[in-house]
Amino acid sequence: MELSSATSGPEAIKQSFYTLKPSEKDEDLLLAAAYVSDAQYNRNVPFETSPRAIRLYYFYNHWTMQVAIYFFICVDLSLALFEEPALFPLPFLATSIAEVLCLTAFFGRLVHFAKVTPQMVFWKDTKNICIMVTIVLTLIDLIIYGSLEAVNIHSIRWSRALRPVFLINFPESRQIRRTFRSIRNTLPDILYVFLLFMFSVLIFSLMALKLFGVRSLKTVEGLPYFTDILEIAFELYVLVTTANSPDVMMPAYNFSRWYSLYFITYIIINTYIFMSVFLAVVYNNYRKHLKNEILKLAYLKRRKMIEAFNILKVKVGTEFVVTEAQWKRLAKIVMPHISSPHLELLLRISDEGQKGHVDKMNFLRLADLLNIQVVAINIKRHPLEDWMPRVYQSSASLLVQRMVRHRIFVWVYDVIILVNAIFIALDEKKPFISNAEWLFLSLYIIEILLKLYTYEPRAYFGRKQFWNWFDTLIIIAALVATVANATIQSGNYNSQQILDIVLILRILRLLRIIVSIQRFRLIVTTLINIGPTILTFGGLVLVVYYVFAIIGMEAFQGKVWFFDPNFTTPEAQVCGNPALTGSAFARDHYCKNNFNDLASSFIVLMELTVVNQWHVLAGGFALVTHQAAKLYFISFHIVVVILIVNIFIAFILEAFFVAYSLEKSEVETAIEKKIQELGVGVQEEEMQDGKLIDNMDAKDSGFSGDDGDNKRKALKGLYFRIASKKYRTVDALLQQMFESEITPEDEGPSLDEILNLSPSDIYPKNPSFGNSA
Amino acid sequence: MELSSATSGPEAIKQSFYTLKPSEKDEDLLLAAAYVSDAQYNRNVPFETSPRAIRLYYFYNHWTMQVAIYFFICVDLSLALFEEPALFPLPFLATSIAEVLCLTAFFGRLVHFAKVTPQMVFWKDTKNICIMVTIVLTLIDLIIYGSLEAVNIHSIRWSRALRPVFLINFPESRQIRRTFRSIRNTLPDILYVFLLFMFSVLIFSLMALKLFGVRSLKTVEGLPYFTDILEIAFELYVLVTTANSPDVMMPAYNFSRWYSLYFITYIIINTYIFMSVFLAVVYNNYRKHLKNEILKLAYLKRRKMIEAFNILKVKVGTEFVVTEAQWKRLAKIVMPHISSPHLELLLRISDEGQKGHVDKMNFLRLADLLNIQVVAINIKRHPLEDWMPRVYQSSASLLVQRMVRHRIFVWVYDVIILVNAIFIALDEKKPFISNAEWLFLSLYIIEILLKLYTYEPRAYFGRKQFWNWFDTLIIIAALVATVANATIQSGNYNSQQILDIVLILRILRLLRIIVSIQRFRLIVTTLINIGPTILTFGGLVLVVYYVFAIIGMEAFQGKVWFFDPNFTTPEAQVCGNPALTGSAFARDHYCKNNFNDLASSFIVLMELTVVNQWHVLAGGFALVTHQAAKLYFISFHIVVVILIVNIFIAFILEAFFVAYSLEKSEVETAIEKKIQELGVGVQEEEMQDGKLIDNMDAKDSGFSGDDGDNKRKALKGLYFRIASKKYRTVDALLQQMFESEITPEDEGPSLDEILNLSPSDIYPKNPSFGNSA
Repeated sequence: MELSSATSGPEAIKQSFYTLKPSEKDEDLLLAAAYVSDAQYNRNVPFETSPRAIRLYYFYNHWTMQVAIYFFICVDLSLALFEEPALFPLPFLATSIAEVLCLTAFFGRLVHFAKVTPQMVFWKDTKNICIMVTIVLTLIDLIIYGSLEAVNIHSIRWSRALRPVFLINFPESRQIRRTFRSIRNTLPDILYVFLLFMFSVLIFSLMALKLFGVRSLKTVEGLPYFTDILEIAFELYVLVTTANSPDVMMPAYNFSRWYSLYFITYIIINTYIFMSVFLAVVYNNYRKHLKNEILKLAYLKRRKMIEAFNILKVKVGTEFVVTEAQWKRLAKIVMPHISSPHLELLLRISDEGQKGHVDKMNFLRLADLLNIQVVAINIKRHPLEDWMPRVYQSSASLLVQRMVRHRIFVWVYDVIILVNAIFIALDEKKPFISNAEWLFLSLYIIEILLKLYTYEPRAYFGRKQFWNWFDTLIIIAALVATVANATIQSGNYNSQQILDIVLILRILRLLRIIVSIQRFRLIVTTLINIGPTILTFGGLVLVVYYVFAIIGMEAFQGKVWFFDPNFTTPEAQVCGNPALTGSAFARDHYCKNNFNDLASSFIVLMELTVVNQWHVLAGGFALVTHQAAKLYFISFHIVVVILIVNIFIAFILEAFFVAYSLEKSEVETAIEKKIQELGVGVQEEEMQDGKLIDNMDAKDSGFSGDDGDNKRKALKGLYFRIASKKYRTVDALLQQMFESEITPEDEGPSLDEILNLSPSDIYPKNPSFGNSA
Repeated sequence: MELSSATSGPEAIKQSFYTLKPSEKDEDLLLAAAYVSDAQYNRNVPFETSPRAIRLYYFYNHWTMQVAIYFFICVDLSLALFEEPALFPLPFLATSIAEVLCLTAFFGRLVHFAKVTPQMVFWKDTKNICIMVTIVLTLIDLIIYGSLEAVNIHSIRWSRALRPVFLINFPESRQIRRTFRSIRNTLPDILYVFLLFMFSVLIFSLMALKLFGVRSLKTVEGLPYFTDILEIAFELYVLVTTANSPDVMMPAYNFSRWYSLYFITYIIINTYIFMSVFLAVVYNNYRKHLKNEILKLAYLKRRKMIEAFNILKVKVGTEFVVTEAQWKRLAKIVMPHISSPHLELLLRISDEGQKGHVDKMNFLRLADLLNIQVVAINIKRHPLEDWMPRVYQSSASLLVQRMVRHRIFVWVYDVIILVNAIFIALDEKKPFISNAEWLFLSLYIIEILLKLYTYEPRAYFGRKQFWNWFDTLIIIAALVATVANATIQSGNYNSQQILDIVLILRILRLLRIIVSIQRFRLIVTTLINIGPTILTFGGLVLVVYYVFAIIGMEAFQGKVWFFDPNFTTPEAQVCGNPALTGSAFARDHYCKNNFNDLASSFIVLMELTVVNQWHVLAGGFALVTHQAAKLYFISFHIVVVILIVNIFIAFILEAFFVAYSLEKSEVETAIEKKIQELGVGVQEEEMQDGKLIDNMDAKDSGFSGDDGDNKRKALKGLYFRIASKKYRTVDALLQQMFESEITPEDEGPSLDEILNLSPSDIYPKNPSFGNSA
């Protein structure tokens, strides 16, 4: 990653490309482009060298390549569905061929990456080593398992648990890796709290043994109560998760009222205080490391932008600047498909005084500027107005349009939705009600048609009109499903799946009420904004679940069987395993919670994540495996509930706070201001409230009265809107937060210092349990 | 609260005392004292006026008065233990007389408060109105209930639910009031999220009705599954609390694997996302309002200190200052019992250049300075050294002392504790083991004696030596209990209670291991630091529990009865209520979870707070009250789990972060620096590691070699240590955080502006769902 600014010419170009980290595309690309642009300008390198390098770079990062690699990762992970114990069994030969294919693809990608990276850098990166080791291990496992299978010896496919390595270690999964890194960094701190917590559980276990063990009490099931220290420790651990409260207390409480004090003390100390401390430690570390990494990125970015500036700068008057021509060439190299009005807009923002050059401060913002999606919209009249202006502008038509734009129109439809909700809740067997369904559907379709009549269709379905899309899609889906269902039913064929889908779609229509209530829409918008963050988290959960599911399947497959509920043989009552006779597991009919295939395993793990009754599940599998299973379940609880769920909560809290405190970033505000100044902006709210066209007219007349301004004329007919705002991630927000704190003159610490930044450098006053000792 | 700085003389003194808020004692007292001091100095008011006013103020705030009022509050609250349904029944006459006594006391306190407060201020304060209304209502209720009881009609003692009003509204409970205010402020924001959440639950209920209602599935108990919309909504609400997971899913999951998707979606959206959003909203609001209030206090304090400065200032050279004589008089009025070395130390810190006067910036810190507990310790030699110096300094004695101070000594005792733990876990019936108990006890006592021999006893049991106290108390308690137990057992009288206490004390001894492990000690110290905050929270929980317990007792008393576990009549099986036949409540032996007295009610509410199985409890009481009870249980869940537990978590998170980021405040550091400069400080760590005496010697010799410094000599033989550090609250930390941000020149906004500060003024960029609409 070392970028030497001393070298120049073709070597520098090559080097700067070789050291590209695909994930940090923009600044690196800009820096490389700066070399290229400079070379083109000075003509001391052949013109051809550079564009090829850029093509190489683009090819590696092309979306088809990324999609392909994700496709192979998906195939590789989903192989577990087809391998023994399988949901859809396939012969070993088929799955192993598929796996080898995936491995080849991963290897190919790795080789490609190695080609665009200097050897040194490639081999120093643990990610690449990880992938290669995993490929080798998987091949070894395949060969051993295959040859043993050939002589009919059944062994364990242990390498399957390694498959998520591919998901984590390909450069595209930076977010998941960062979360893992955050977990790893949190471990030392959490370890001591955990040890203290376990010490407290043991002390309480000892007390329970002494207090209750000699009383010869019985549990509800008639078993001896609190007589074995290990059993007690497990029960008390379960109590921390609250899963066996208050059952674990009842025998002692029934014996004497005072014993409840023991349990209350235990719950306050271990459930409430220790669990909150876990959250506090995880959250604190998460925040610390997140900010550390973001600051590191911000400094790196700044360094690269300064380097690019230094390459291109020329002296004008007293200060160094980049000329307009150089700036345009650079932008075009980086974004070959940028439209010229867009480029003009960016230049106008960067070159505020229209002096024909861009100063250092504005140049440093270029990467951010290029990142902001500015959508150029060509405002047109309503198509109907073009086709039949007289009819569209007739008084009846205008009345309809005014009506649709009125508040009462919205309220009427809100009432219709509520009535619809009541009809859905009623019994649909009556013909009156099933016919009403068609009425509601047609009302909704009329609503959409009226709206399309009133508003310009392309504006109505603009890229950012999330709620319009949502509205329309729900109605269309309901229409399609209802029609399909009616067709099938008239043919006397009753498909359960389709009926279920129709039902769900019919009810989802009620979600339209959210669109009408402003505050609800705000909450949902905030939730959608933090959606990408939650999705990253989904990747993390997938990885952990997958590993545990594979281990669980190898360990517990076939121990517990599910029988049809109507099947009441004694065997079905104990899930096909006599060891479960009389257990809570069998009594609660949990037989389907087993590890007999990947889907079932995932559902069991989900139930364990929700925590409730996990001791019943653990107890059931403990019975069929002679208690060994408890270790599996406890370790799952520690990893998922204590670590991952807490990180998830930290995630959401932080995302909410950042979303609260940073509404618009500095750069975007600058662009918006410029757009407004140039009179070519479109307000989001205006679009939604349907005042778009009126507004456009006003703007148009404004333009026509101001013909003197030549530059302004060039932009006429084009309107810009910032599109990225809603789908921004917490990362980007935080990064901009830090960047605004770095002054333009500040070149940051040296590269080595940046790369070795530790959280304690940012928070010198922020001791944790780990380092204040 | 308006303090006019225009008036002066006796009127001003009186007024400033009348407007005192006892809780904001220090700055107000200082301001009043400034008037007094000024008056004394100028001799234009009789000397007598002012000290009497100060005595009046001290009398109202005297600790005996505060203890008395808390005593009456406790009596009033605990009356519920003796009233029907009673734990210890007392006749109505006795409890009502006690209640009237308490009310009289409250009224008396209120009258006292009215006497030291101007009428206007008194009547504008809602707290006082609340107390008066509650007193009147309670009296009315007492009279009605008493007269109805006299004619044998049993009515409801509804006023009992109002008793916590006294706990909240007396000026001493500022923290609890603030938390309630914080909850009230959070309500609008949380309401909309809650409505959206309920909307989501309803949509899912409707789906469940349509998807599962027609399948005629059965639950484990054989009841129809998901057929009634209200029943479904309740079950799904319970699923949000995870209490019925995965049972509620099992019938549908057993029917078809795909239905698990419905439940997974539900859990992700409602349990994980919505519950985290609740936490985020509560936390965000908590933080916002906390900081707002703290900032308000900081500004108010600053204003008052500036006013006091303006009263006392004289012009010296170009700047206004307070003379040393005035400053000393002021400090002595505020703290009559301050020792002269302490006063000297404070003056030395305030008057850095020793110019004979205190400048404005240093004067403004006076309130903080006076608040910091500086403990003067008179360092003495070990008493044994005085009594028999030759023996104590002999080589054998020195060897013992070196041995005790060595690390290995600690390790040996750690091993002894571990061995002890193993012995405790073993069966104590064997004589070998019960004799070993005496061995361990004597080993521990020898340890303490050795330590007292080595370290100076008064230093070892210093005010801040928490861990030494902890160690010694545990050993002494264990010794006393074991001896008592042996005495009783030898007399063939076996008391269960004493045996239990002995057992617990014997096991608590193992906690000494924490003292040896540095990291554990750090974690525990942090927890102890946030202890006061957690206690405030305990008050809040007490209030809410009390109100719900009284309502619960009135509504559910006598519905469910507990029978001895050995009693197996059919009536005992259904908790004495036939409506419970076959219910999960009876099956799980929950009969003792009832509302038949205050203690039982509190335990039930605690179980409901822990959440698990709350639907079984709710279901049981719903059966005996025709479903009405569910409302009670749901509202308890919303209030306690969604609001209060989240505030608790916010509490702990914030306390942890503040404790992490603010190790020492600015003012304390200044004092410490001065103490160090003057060479009269004692390091905390030195005290603990037992190097105290060596260190003292070094200091002493240092002093003797530096006789020339006169001032320094005055402090000789006295050592100071800051004592407040460990038991500081989050409040104080935050306040100092904000104060350090206010520059000395900044007089803050005007008084009206301060009092009307709203969170949005502090965070202009911090929109919430509530105000960004």
